[in-house]
Parts: sequence; C-alpha cells; structure tokens
Amino acid sequence: MSQIRKAVLAYSGGLDTSVIMKWLQDTYHCEVVTFTADLGQGEELEAARPKALKLGIAAGNIYIEDLREEFVRDFVFPMFRANTVYEGEYLLGTSIARPLIAKRMIEIANLTAADAVAHGATGKGNDQVRFELGAYALRPDIRIIAPWREWDLLSREKLLAYAEEHGIPVEMKHRQGGSPYSMDANLLHISYEGRHLEDPAAEAEESMWRWTVSPETAPDAAEYLDLEFECGDLVAINGQRLPAHELLGRLNELGGKHGIGRIDLVENRYVGMKSRGCYETPGGTILLPAHRAIESITLDREVAHLKDDLMPRYASLIYNGYWWSPERLALQKLIDHTQRAVNGWVRVKLYKGNVIVVGRDSATDSLFDSTIATFEDDAGAYDQKDAAGFIKLNALRMRIAARLAARRQ
Amino acid sequence: MSQIRKAVLAYSGGLDTSVIMKWLQDTYHCEVVTFTADLGQGEELEAARPKALKLGIAAGNIYIEDLREEFVRDFVFPMFRANTVYEGEYLLGTSIARPLIAKRMIEIANLTAADAVAHGATGKGNDQVRFELGAYALRPDIRIIAPWREWDLLSREKLLAYAEEHGIPVEMKHRQGGSPYSMDANLLHISYEGRHLEDPAAEAEESMWRWTVSPETAPDAAEYLDLEFECGDLVAINGQRLPAHELLGRLNELGGKHGIGRIDLVENRYVGMKSRGCYETPGGTILLPAHRAIESITLDREVAHLKDDLMPRYASLIYNGYWWSPERLALQKLIDHTQRAVNGWVRVKLYKGNVIVVGRDSATDSLFDSTIATFEDDAGAYDQKDAAGFIKLNALRMRIAARLAARRQ
Amino acid sequence: MSQIRKAVLAYSGGLDTSVIMKWLQDTYHCEVVTFTADLGQGEELEAARPKALKLGIAAGNIYIEDLREEFVRDFVFPMFRANTVYEGEYLLGTSIARPLIAKRMIEIANLTAADAVAHGATGKGNDQVRFELGAYALRPDIRIIAPWREWDLLSREKLLAYAEEHGIPVEMKHRQGGSPYSMDANLLHISYEGRHLEDPAAEAEESMWRWTVSPETAPDAAEYLDLEFECGDLVAINGQRLPAHELLGRLNELGGKHGIGRIDLVENRYVGMKSRGCYETPGGTILLPAHRAIESITLDREVAHLKDDLMPRYASLIYNGYWWSPERLALQKLIDHTQRAVNGWVRVKLYKGNVIVVGRDSATDSLFDSTIATFEDDAGAYDQKDAAGFIKLNALRMRIAARLAARRQ
Amino acid sequence: MSQIRKAVLAYSGGLDTSVIMKWLQDTYHCEVVTFTADLGQGEELEAARPKALKLGIAAGNIYIEDLREEFVRDFVFPMFRANTVYEGEYLLGTSIARPLIAKRMIEIANLTAADAVAHGATGKGNDQVRFELGAYALRPDIRIIAPWREWDLLSREKLLAYAEEHGIPVEMKHRQGGSPYSMDANLLHISYEGRHLEDPAAEAEESMWRWTVSPETAPDAAEYLDLEFECGDLVAINGQRLPAHELLGRLNELGGKHGIGRIDLVENRYVGMKSRGCYETPGGTILLPAHRAIESITLDREVAHLKDDLMPRYASLIYNGYWWSPERLALQKLIDHTQRAVNGWVRVKLYKGNVIVVGRDSATDSLFDSTIATFEDDAGAYDQKDAAGFIKLNALRMRIAARLAARRQ
Repeated sequence: MSQIRKAVLAYSGGLDTSVIMKWLQDTYHCEVVTFTADLGQGEELEAARPKALKLGIAAGNIYIEDLREEFVRDFVFPMFRANTVYEGEYLLGTSIARPLIAKRMIEIANLTAADAVAHGATGKGNDQVRFELGAYALRPDIRIIAPWREWDLLSREKLLAYAEEHGIPVEMKHRQGGSPYSMDANLLHISYEGRHLEDPAAEAEESMWRWTVSPETAPDAAEYLDLEFECGDLVAINGQRLPAHELLGRLNELGGKHGIGRIDLVENRYVGMKSRGCYETPGGTILLPAHRAIESITLDREVAHLKDDLMPRYASLIYNGYWWSPERLALQKLIDHTQRAVNGWVRVKLYKGNVIVVGRDSATDSLFDSTIATFEDDAGAYDQKDAAGFIKLNALRMRIAARLAARRQ
Repeated sequence: MSQIRKAVLAYSGGLDTSVIMKWLQDTYHCEVVTFTADLGQGEELEAARPKALKLGIAAGNIYIEDLREEFVRDFVFPMFRANTVYEGEYLLGTSIARPLIAKRMIEIANLTAADAVAHGATGKGNDQVRFELGAYALRPDIRIIAPWREWDLLSREKLLAYAEEHGIPVEMKHRQGGSPYSMDANLLHISYEGRHLEDPAAEAEESMWRWTVSPETAPDAAEYLDLEFECGDLVAINGQRLPAHELLGRLNELGGKHGIGRIDLVENRYVGMKSRGCYETPGGTILLPAHRAIESITLDREVAHLKDDLMPRYASLIYNGYWWSPERLALQKLIDHTQRAVNGWVRVKLYKGNVIVVGRDSATDSLFDSTIATFEDDAGAYDQKDAAGFIKLNALRMRIAARLAARRQ
Repeated sequence: MSQIRKAVLAYSGGLDTSVIMKWLQDTYHCEVVTFTADLGQGEELEAARPKALKLGIAAGNIYIEDLREEFVRDFVFPMFRANTVYEGEYLLGTSIARPLIAKRMIEIANLTAADAVAHGATGKGNDQVRFELGAYALRPDIRIIAPWREWDLLSREKLLAYAEEHGIPVEMKHRQGGSPYSMDANLLHISYEGRHLEDPAAEAEESMWRWTVSPETAPDAAEYLDLEFECGDLVAINGQRLPAHELLGRLNELGGKHGIGRIDLVENRYVGMKSRGCYETPGGTILLPAHRAIESITLDREVAHLKDDLMPRYASLIYNGYWWSPERLALQKLIDHTQRAVNGWVRVKLYKGNVIVVGRDSATDSLFDSTIATFEDDAGAYDQKDAAGFIKLNALRMRIAARLAARRQ
Repeated sequence: MSQIRKAVLAYSGGLDTSVIMKWLQDTYHCEVVTFTADLGQGEELEAARPKALKLGIAAGNIYIEDLREEFVRDFVFPMFRANTVYEGEYLLGTSIARPLIAKRMIEIANLTAADAVAHGATGKGNDQVRFELGAYALRPDIRIIAPWREWDLLSREKLLAYAEEHGIPVEMKHRQGGSPYSMDANLLHISYEGRHLEDPAAEAEESMWRWTVSPETAPDAAEYLDLEFECGDLVAINGQRLPAHELLGRLNELGGKHGIGRIDLVENRYVGMKSRGCYETPGGTILLPAHRAIESITLDREVAHLKDDLMPRYASLIYNGYWWSPERLALQKLIDHTQRAVNGWVRVKLYKGNVIVVGRDSATDSLFDSTIATFEDDAGAYDQKDAAGFIKLNALRMRIAARLAARRQ
C-alpha cells in the first residue's frame, strides 16, 4: 500500500489524541492536520492550538471550528423529526455527532489535499464505525488510520509512558488515573462508560453526573415551558425565537436544573457486544415528548404509524453509523415530507426529573376535531351507525374462520 | 332478521348499563343475562346483584366474577412481554381488558344458550370495536346489540328521564350532572376522557387524578424495588412471589404513592378521529422500563430489534381490538418464544414521578460479557483488528457508489 | 339529510350504469352528469353519448375524456417504481385505475357544482372502497350514491326488467345472460371474476381469456426487446421513445402475442372475503421483471431492501383504495427519491408465456463493479482478509450466547 | 494463538478442496478430517474416499454422508413455508445448504475432538460468511481456516502448480482451463457465476445450463401435477407420498423436462458487492407458486400479509448466513405456527418454462366462502349496507384533513 503523505486528525486536545498526533508523525512520517470541532461539549477549544503547535503541527494545518449550529440544525433536529430512540431508551447523543465530524474531516482533507484521516476511537466501540463509514461514503479512496487498532499502547500506563517519552504534556488528572469514566459530550448529551459501570448490576454513583442535578436536589417548584414548532423543528421557547443550537442549549440548562434526562442502560453495540452506558440528555429528553405531542394533533394517524414502524430502523442506521448512507437519506425524505404539517405549540411542565406534556395545539394544522370526538351531542357530525358496518366488515374474515373451526369440531 | 331470545349484557352496575338492561327487555322482549366482571376496577361488584334483580333479571342469570388473576396473567403480562406502547405513549390499559370481557361474555352466552350479547360502549369509541371483534371471532353467529348506536337516548337528560320513567335507581351524583369525565378502570389503569379534556390545549385539573398523588405531593424519600422476572413476566417484588394480579396491585400502590404513571395525550382512534385521553397506569409505568431492562441483558440484539420493529403493529392490533385475531396469536408465538431467556432481576428507584432503573442482572441468562466490553485490557477476548475488516466490508457498497458519483462529476 | 341536486355518475355506457343513470333521476330527482373515461379499455366511448342523451342527460352534462396518458404516466408507472405486487401475484390493474376516476369525478363535480357522485360498484367488492375513499379524500363533503348498496335490483332479471320498463336499450348479449364473467379493463389489465371462477378448484376456461393467446398457441420464435428506463420509468422500447400509455400499449401487444401475463389467483379483499380472480396483464408482466432488473444494477442494496420491505404495505394501500391518503404520498416520496438513479436498459426475451431477462446495464448509474466481483485476480481492489473481521464481529453476539449456553449445560 | 491440532475440512472431492487438504497438513501440521456431504448435487461422492486416502487422510477420518432428506425436510421446506425469495428473484439454493454443512462440520468436529474447521469458499463471497457464522453459532470456540483468505494461490495457474508439485491428481478438464463457471449444486438448485457472466449485459450461453432444457426445446404438450400440502409442506405429487427429498427430486425432473426454473440476475452480496448469477431451480420454481396458492385459500388475510411483510427480512437472514441465529429461529416459530392450517392441494400446469396454477382447494381448511363472495344473490350472508359504514369510518381521518385543507385555502 502506498505511503501516507498527509492525515487529518480529529483532535480533541486531550491526552489520547495528542499522543496520536505524535505517533502519526513518528509512525507514518506524514504531515498532520488537526481538526477540532466545537459541538457544544463545553470545553475551551482554543487550548488545542498551542498544544498542536508545540507537537509540530504547522499553524496553517490547525483547524478549530464552531459547528454547533450546523450540528443541531442539520443533524440533531432532523433526527428528532422521527422521534428517534435506539432500543427504547437511548437518544443517540454520541451517534449523531459522528457523521458531522466525518463530513468535516473529509472536507478538510479535500481542502488540504490530505490522503488520510485519523481518529482516536477504540476498536471495540461504535464510534470507529461511524467515523469510518462516513469517511468512506464521502470519499471512497480515503485512507483511514485508527491507532487504537494498530498500536500497542493498549494500557493507560503505556500511553502515559509514551507521552512522557515524547514530550507530550500530561495533565495532573491523567497522572492520577484520569477520569473514572470514558466520556463524550456535545450539545445533545454527555455519556459515561467504563470502570464502575462495567458491572450492570451496580448503581451509578451520584458524583458521576455532570450536567443535571438529581431529581432530589432539583427545585421544589415546577416550571412551565411553551415550545413552538415549525415543520417539526423547535423554533421558539416561551415565545423567543433562537437559532437551533441556542434553543437546545436553553433546553439543556432548564433540563439540567430540573434533574431531567439521566438514563442508565445496557445497549447492544454494532460490533456485537452489550455495553453499559449512562447518559445525560436534558434538552433532548424535553424535546422528544414535546415533538410527539405536536405530532399527535397535526399528523395523520397512518402517517404517524408509518413513522413509528420505520423509526427503529432509522435509529439503528444512525446508531450504526449509516447517516451518510443512501437508505438513511431515503428515509429522511419520507420523514421530512411528513413534517410540513407539524406546526404548533406544546406546553410542558418540568419538575424534579419529570417532563409532563400538559397541552398542545396548532392554529394551522390541528386535525383534532372536537365536534366529532365529543361525548356530547355532535349535531350529526358523525353517524354512530356507521360503526356497525365498520366492525362487521373488519370482523368478516375472523367470522368465516370461526365458522370453519366450528364446523370442524 | 330473526328475533333475539336471550342477551348477555356486560353490566357494570352503573346508570348507563342499568338503563340498557331495561331497554333491552322492553325493546327486544328478550331474556337478559348480566355479566359483571371484577378486573380490579376497585368497586364493590356485589352491589350489581340487587340492582339486576330489581330490574327483573332472574337470579340464575346474574354472573358476577372475579377475573383479576386471569386478566393480569393472560392478558396484561403477555402484552408487556412485547414492551407494548401505542403511539409512543399509551399503555393500552382499556384495550387489553376488552378481549377478556368479550371472551367471558361469549362463554356465558354459550353456557346460557343466549343468542346475543350487548354492551354499553358508544358508537364513537374503540371499545365497541374491541368487544364486537372479540365476540365475532369467538362466536361468529352471535348477535350484537349496541344500544348507543340504536337508541335515541343520546343526551344525559334523555337517559335520566328514561331511568326515572322506568324505575331505575339514579344516584345523586348523576342527578347533579355526573362525573365530569368518562372513566374506565381496571388493574392496569384508570382513564379519563371528555368534558374539560376535549380542549387539547387545556391542562388537566389536578382534582381529576384518582390513583396517583402528584409528583409534588409524593414522598421526599425515594424507594428502591427489586423486581424479579421469569420468562419475561414479573414474578416477585423485593423477593416476595405473588400471583400476577397481586404483583400488579402492589406496583399500583407503590407507583400511586410516588406520583408515577400519569399520562396526558392525544391518540388516534381506530374509528378515525383524534381523542384526548388522560391515564393513570402506576404499576405499568414501573413494569415497562423494568421489563426493557431485564431484556437489555438477556435478549440477543437482533431478537430485541425484531421485537421493537414488530411492537407498533402488535400494539395497534391490541388497540384496535384484534386480540383474538390469528395475526395477534402468530405474533404472540414469536414474542413468547423470545421470552424464555428473559430471566433475572432489575432494581428500580421510585421518586416523585420518576422510575429510574439503577441495576439489572441475570444469574442464568446474561449476555453481558464484561471481559469483552471492558475498556481495560481484555486479554485477547476481542481482536480490535477485526473491526477494520468489518467496517471495510460494510462500507464497500457506499464506496462503490461514491466512486461512481466522483467519476460522473 | 339534505336533498341531492346534481350527481356525477361514472358511466361506462353499459347496461348497469345505464340503469343507474335512470334510477338516479327517478329516485333522487336530481340532475345527472355522466363521466366516461378512456383508460384504454378498448371500447368505443363515444357510443355513450347518444345513450346518455336518450336517457335524458343534457348535452353539456356529458363528459367523455381520454385519460390514457395521465393514467399510465401518473398512476401505473409510479406504482411500478415500487415493484408493486399484491399478495405476491396481483399487479393491481383494477386498483390503480380507481383513484384516477375518483379524482376526475370530483373535479367534474367541482366544475359542474354537483353535490354528489355515483358509481356502479357493488357492495361486496373493493372498488366501492377505492372510489369512495378517493372521493372523500379529495372532497370531504361529497355525497356518495352507491345504488348497488341501496336498491333492490339485486338480480340480473330485475335489472333487465327495470331496463325494459324504463326504455333503456338492452343489447342482445344481456338478454342471453350476458358475459359469464364480471370484467374490468384498462391499459394495465383485464380482469375476470364470478360464475365458473367461483369454484377455486376449477380451471379457467381457455375461451375466457381475451387479451393474450395461450402459451401453446403463441409464436414458436422468441422475440427480444430492449427496454430503456429513466428515473425508474420505461421511456423507450427498442430505441423508440413514446408517451407512457403508448409504451404500455406496445408492451400489451407484444405480451399478448407471446402468451404473457395470465394469472389465476385467490385474493383477500379489503372487505373481508376471499375471491377468485383471473387477470391478463401482458405489458405489466414484462415491465415488472424489467424494472427489477434495471434496479438490480443501479440501486444500492439497502435502498433496494428498504423498498422491498415497504412494498407489501404500499401494495395494500393501493389495493385497499388509499392512493390519495397521506401515507401513500409519504411512501411515494421515498420511492420516487430512490428512482433518480434507476437509468439504463434491460433486454428481455419473450417466448410462449415467458419473460426472460437476459441482460441489463446502465451507462451512467451502474453499481456493478466487475473489478471487485471478479473470480479472477482483482489487483487489490478488494482485500479478502477483511472478510475475516467482518464475519468475526457479525458472529460475536452469537458466540457470546453459545458460550453462555455451553456453560449452562 | 495456540496451534491447531485437528481440522474438519468440507471436502467436495474436487481440485480446490484437494489442494486445501494438502495445504492444511503442510501449513498447520494438523490432522485433517474430511467431510463430504451428499445434498443431491448429483456426483458420485465415494470417489472422494480414495482421493483423501491418497493424500494422507486416515481412513477413520473420512466422513461421507447422505444428508439429502435432512436437507430438504429441515432446511428447504421450512424456508419455503415463508415463500422465501431474496431480492424478488433468488430462491436461495446455495444459501440454504450452508447451514446444514456448518452444523454437520461442527458435529463431526465434536465427534473427532477437532479444534478447527476449514472450507474452500473464497473471501469475496457469501458462502464463507454462511459457513463461519453457522460454525461460530454452534461452537463459539471453533477455529476457522479459510485458505482462500490466507494463501497466495490466487490464480488457477498457481493452484495447478501446487497440485502438481504435491502429487494431487488433476483431471484433464482442469488442465484445459476447467469449467468456465463457478458452480454449486444441491437438490434445490445449481448455480453459475463468473467468466462470461461477469458482464451483466451479456446473455448467458445456452450451453451453460445443465438441469433444464430450454423452453424452446421443452415438450409441446403441457403436463398437469396435483401437489398435496400438509402444514405448509409438500407431501405428495399426483397422489404419491414420498420423503421430502424424493418429492423435490421429482419436481426437479419435471421442471427440468419442461424448461422451468432458469433465472438470470444481479444480486447484492452480504460482503458489499453486486454479483451476476444464473440459477436453475426447477423444483423450487414449481413449489413456490404452489405453496402460495394453497396459502391463498387457507391463510387468513392478515396472517398472510404479516408473513409477506416479514419475508424479505427472513430471506436476508438466510442469504446472509444467519440460519442459526436466534432471530431466524424466532421468525421460524411464527412462520411454522401459521402453517398448521396450510393443508390442501394445488393443481399446476407445466409448459415450456411456465408454471401455471389452475386450481386449488382444501377439504379441511378452506377460508374461501363462495356463499359470501358470489356475484349472485347470497341469501343475506353479507349485508352490502355494512360497506357504507366501513368506508365512512375508514375515510374519516382523510375527510377531517381535507376539511382543514379547504378551510386554509
């Protein structure tokens, strides 16, 4: 295989990808371009620049970009249009960020004439798949370097030793053993895996959670929110229109304050194993039932059921890394088409971990017709006698079968 | 059409079905058999007996039966094996009771040589469909009388006038306008529809809820439960084995105490309209995530996904009244087969409306293999290099397509 | 219910709808507008005009329209994009014509300020449902008159008597008992039901078939066709570009000549019964495998599988009359999106009932990459070693389960 | 990784697996057990014994087994219960044989205390996946040797050179270039891939086909068959009950004689590429429509539709090698459950490539009720007026939506 000349590295600024940055240069003797994306993980990303410079990256090869709005507008919100949940529980906070990083990595590779991309995901997880499927789909000849599948620095000790040996700055926390958890954060969620959590029977420690207070310590007073939707997307909170990422940020604050959005689960990874994960998704946990509620009065029944039937498949596609696949795009066409009618508002009440939908309406698209549904006299809007024929014909096939069964006895 | 000789009436003991009991005798000149079932609705059912006697029913034609255990064991629990939820929210509390009533109505019709059954469901709702599809499936030649679709007593005033005229006892509450809501209750839930709720934008009144305290007034201290499952069914709470209906009753108490299980939604009825409903399902709201949690470590990924893909269809079948259909039975075969492995325990924490799964394990059936999933050294249990080939082949079709797209530009 | 002023009748020119035309005027005392559509059924439709005039229809109220091109272009071809087959066999020839007739009936009702539509479909079949669901979806307040569900002319004798009594011309064939079959024809197919066919065990008589010769009497020499597709639609035969309906007409001739497209089946009607039907669909029977073949080299695997998974649902929607439903439109969005890549040609061989695909290719969109698939040396286009990892990770969940099972023994 | 002691080789007796037999001994220095299965491929398998002996295999290590009955009874017939077709065309003839070979390989490995299995499938195809997923599922610690992914004998020339060098007998046909096609045969089909077929635009040569005459050269007289089914399986032909494999063999003869069962397609392999394949499946091509036909009168509509909806998924599982997966087993439970009612007979006419169903009936399980479906007077079996209510309620949601749309304009 031909040599690699230039590689774009998804660089977080942390220890692991700093080691990779050095290792790439030493192992592949290639130029390295670093790409650090702000997806709302809440860290100071400019700190990555001096680190990269110090480890030999040319100033022009350091890309630090704020992708927060694109992330929420073009990835998170489209996904929520489908009420997407993986395995009944997981809101796909990590999964949905990867395709954007993959896309931007490839764009930077194209800009810088790089022939490879590199990432710091391990060989056991889903993220390697998500990065690489995206990269291959967007640039089929790209070379991919996944150091965790190649090198022998498979323990924390070896990694630290390599860092010390090569002059890579190591923060005190890493020397002391680092965080007890493997974490990932962006505007949609923060995740925790590993260590203590590897025993699925053990309760997560309260000290682990970072974005939400516990329900117990959340305020004693409930808070109501009015959420406004247009074409299935949240556009305003309490009447205030904001860009997508600011809306989600605001929901995160509110959810976090009210102890909303913690989840503790065992999930099935695409690579074949079960894995325990804990997640905080405060804003998403508010958004999901609110979106369902606005759909509940604006979507046709069969359209809603079609979406529900397809959702698990769509969720698996995202979880497994197929955001850039043609089948995800085809499903998105259908989903987006249905959302043209999803306009209106939803009122939710936040209280100590609860998100309670208390009202919903649509001035333009409500299919709720109280003149028909009423228990009172409906002035002929609905002829109850129609129901007899409806039931009789729906029962016909079962009656024929039952008559046959009776004859046979 | 031939005359009706004897009709079995699903008799609640309330005003509506008392009027029906009289109306049936007067209109069809037929003998009436009353059937009153205890499904855990929490009312004194023996009160129905003197009422029926007073209105001319022969003592031998009054059936009052405790179906609580059968209801939970053979209907509720099988449904929960599929993690069944209708339209993302509704736990099908009313829907799942109807097929049992239909079945027992038909059995009593067979026992008493009746040629008809009658019920008090209106012509706008789902319940008429559920009763009648069940009845037709189990006895294809049965005659069905649905007075609400036939008579002209379509307002409360006319109903009361009829009652007074025919000597049917009317309780004070009915004279005063009756309950503001149309309600239905059984061991799985209590439901509210109508009146104030007919405006989907209006918040439900706190005074409406009957089974649960509000999260605000629930205890300040959380409570942990250990739930034990065998073949997908709950068999013990905190180590205490109980019959199915007692387990669900216990969960209802605990859920109600902790403000768990209120839901407020707009649903799509089978008869074609949208309808606002509020439900309290305290026990079911605990059971659902607990069942998901025990499945999460005992079910194979693809089996779990297959179940998730089929669930909305299974839920619609139950919602629409097809419990006794051959397609529901076929799906149940698949579902039940998968549950043989669903054995183990789940720990949940109840707190002010929250049901939080904090741990789960299975001594016999756990597919969670921490030696593989671990972030630590796995001693060769998993070869990370395998992932490269896995990704490459999964990406192949997208790479071929991308190469074609590139050539075309 | 208010009186009907003016009704648009779907008028074939035949005996049944002629009787209806008269009956409508006599029964409803309403003005009648007749609508006769040429969908390629192969009859002289202008003959309907003098008949209508004779029975009292105003000249300006007689609509005779050639809808052949719209029918094939906007209904048949979109349906074939999904490889649509109902219950594995039926190409939906009748079903796909009804929504166009419903649409045009409503348009004419709007043009003529009519408040009702009427049709000649019986109360046992699917066509009433297809007409009426379409009509209601396109004009929700339309009144629908279905004489077969209302009148008492339920036998042929009564119908003939009514005709004679009211001066409706009766052709000799009707006096002699009429056709032994209930038939329907359009550019996609001709159908036969009833009489002799009501015994599902009995073979259809050779004399019944009208559009195709039998395979036995078809030419002894095969004929090859080159079919060209653009965006999933047939656009040319043997290099000759023609409008959609002329292409289908040409395929019908060719198929008919070669004994292609007879089918004999028992289908499940939406109204709940099983029904024996025989169909001739010569052109469609050529088109279906040809479309599949061009998709086979141009569609991504997972997109193709997604379409296959959704096809039965889409087929049922069309069969059941839901062409104008929002869920059909949503599915069509997905389907049409996938067809942008479906460009190329297919060669088929027609011979005595057989349609044999013998070659296919696409100059612009072929995803067939012989450098990868080859059994010969591929010069590194595909690394066979990748397969080991692919298999290992796909097997992982089953290995973990098997290890657990082994430990348990 | 520890050394391999003993490997079970799936040994066809042909050149490739003879070379593998030698190569295994030389490369892994392991004992080799050969397993040669008769699946109806129509070759003399005992010829494999002296070959194996000559190449150093111990007499007790040579397994030659007749698996034909098990193959058809436990693999082919269960698959046909689902009307299984992959990608609309392929009857899975190769796919369905692999799981049986995998199972028996593992059983022999267990019997002989072998720690590995080896096969001759290439690294580009589906068969490696099918063998290995089966093997891993049945014995998770098995070692798998796939020489085509490991060695460097990647051209025919190298293979022949290796054979000559190691004293492996080479037949004249191989010296002359061997068959122009890669072939696989068993009782269900024979397949052709490679060479000339690698151009999807090129018609297959007539000389390629081995099991069927061409429709052109098939007899001029049609032949009728009566096929009898019990629980969804074929049990008798023309009244003669035979074991499963003899029935399929008989259908193969009849189909082959009448030019039935050739198919030429481009399929999507699980490993990610498109591939051109030609198949002869004479018996299966008769069996499939016959099974559909007997289902058409014995299966409930919704059960049949459920099966149709699940079929593509079931087909993909088999195609991709997941026969031994828990999800295939779960689906099989559902499928088999539905087949209890699938009893009766079907008459088919075979003529020059055509399989024409001309009649079907069931003495015990027919749901076809001609008293209801009839176009004649049904004496009240079905009330046509019921259809009005049926349609009205099914239309209700669309009418509400249309009214909203009208108001908005």
